[in-house]
Amino acid sequence: MSNEVVLLDFWASMFGMRIRIALAEKGVKYEHREEDLRNKSDLLLKMNPIHKKIPVLIHNGKPVCESLIIVEYIDEVWKDKCPLLPSDPYQRAQARFWADFVDKKVYEVFKGVWLMWAKKGEEHEAAKKEFFEIFKILEGELGDKPYFGGETFGFVDISFITFYSWFHAYETFGKFSIEAECPKIIAWVKRCMQKESVAKTLPDQKKILEYAVQLRKRFGLE
Amino acid sequence: MSNEVVLLDFWASMFGMRIRIALAEKGVKYEHREEDLRNKSDLLLKMNPIHKKIPVLIHNGKPVCESLIIVEYIDEVWKDKCPLLPSDPYQRAQARFWADFVDKKVYEVFKGVWLMWAKKGEEHEAAKKEFFEIFKILEGELGDKPYFGGETFGFVDISFITFYSWFHAYETFGKFSIEAECPKIIAWVKRCMQKESVAKTLPDQKKILEYAVQLRKRFGLE
Repeated sequence: MSNEVVLLDFWASMFGMRIRIALAEKGVKYEHREEDLRNKSDLLLKMNPIHKKIPVLIHNGKPVCESLIIVEYIDEVWKDKCPLLPSDPYQRAQARFWADFVDKKVYEVFKGVWLMWAKKGEEHEAAKKEFFEIFKILEGELGDKPYFGGETFGFVDISFITFYSWFHAYETFGKFSIEAECPKIIAWVKRCMQKESVAKTLPDQKKILEYAVQLRKRFGLE
Repeated sequence: MSNEVVLLDFWASMFGMRIRIALAEKGVKYEHREEDLRNKSDLLLKMNPIHKKIPVLIHNGKPVCESLIIVEYIDEVWKDKCPLLPSDPYQRAQARFWADFVDKKVYEVFKGVWLMWAKKGEEHEAAKKEFFEIFKILEGELGDKPYFGGETFGFVDISFITFYSWFHAYETFGKFSIEAECPKIIAWVKRCMQKESVAKTLPDQKKILEYAVQLRKRFGLE
């Protein structure tokens, strides 16, 4: 089977980064196509007509959408190298649970931080409290393991590490330190960043901050 | 391996029903424990401390949470009978995509219908339009296939058929007919209801309507 792989992506997307890391872990060569999210390509609209969102992985002409579904797909197609999900059904269910938690909860509190600059006093404190409630659940789940799944980098790590590229922006907006509250998460981040697949994928945090500042201006949040 | 299976559930939950259908398809015997959602059991809070929601499948003492994750788990553990997900990675990704669509979009428009009784004129029309936009996407995806995955009842069918138990309530609230707009979905519903696993699981639609009316009163929506 030929393996023509194209990724429709956007550089600052934590969802797109998941796919870049998974493909790097598997050693899959692919064509990267950067999308302009304000002027989406005909190809993106054709390949993801339902959600019209990146990332989309196009494998031999056929699209796969939704980042966690794409990562599972990559793991199943290129199954011989670096398994991302565990083989045991119970451990697989746990990995899916925590990746789903990142999608539902971490993304939610991340969106909440956008508004923090505009918030003062009690409101700011409430948003900060909510942010760390979610992060501390992950800190607890990680515990003293090197990675979320145990000894090796896998599905939950991929789903969460991409948010790290936005930590600096969120710490700036939220006026807080993630390391002060969640030292184990930061130790885990450093461990993940030693992997080439992660270090080469994640954009510079300062560039993300600049982009986030532009976005806030565009959305009239300043 | 012993197979002690307990399901923490609530009779009217479309998410709980998914697990009942999956276990019936696989012929797995289990203990069903009905939860009082206004006074959750210590067992539920212990087994799902993160979301505190039903359904929870407890298999040999270990909990699995989130309904689609539980259905995949059941499919992986009892893999010899009635496969629910296809074996081909691309078809699996498509099945996960559509089940995820049901979770994100169908559930969202279902929640919207709760408020329809209170809405009039243009507002009511807008909510109805949104409802059928989502349903017609599913009608299109189903097309002329007997089931969402093709020839056999599977993952996407399980994820969506449980909503049928609420159709009558929503048609009453929304003052519309799903059959008039989406005849293929209703033909598919009838096909699914010929399966014992589905027919025996789905509660009577009139009971669901009575329950929904009670809920609306409790929430002050009348």
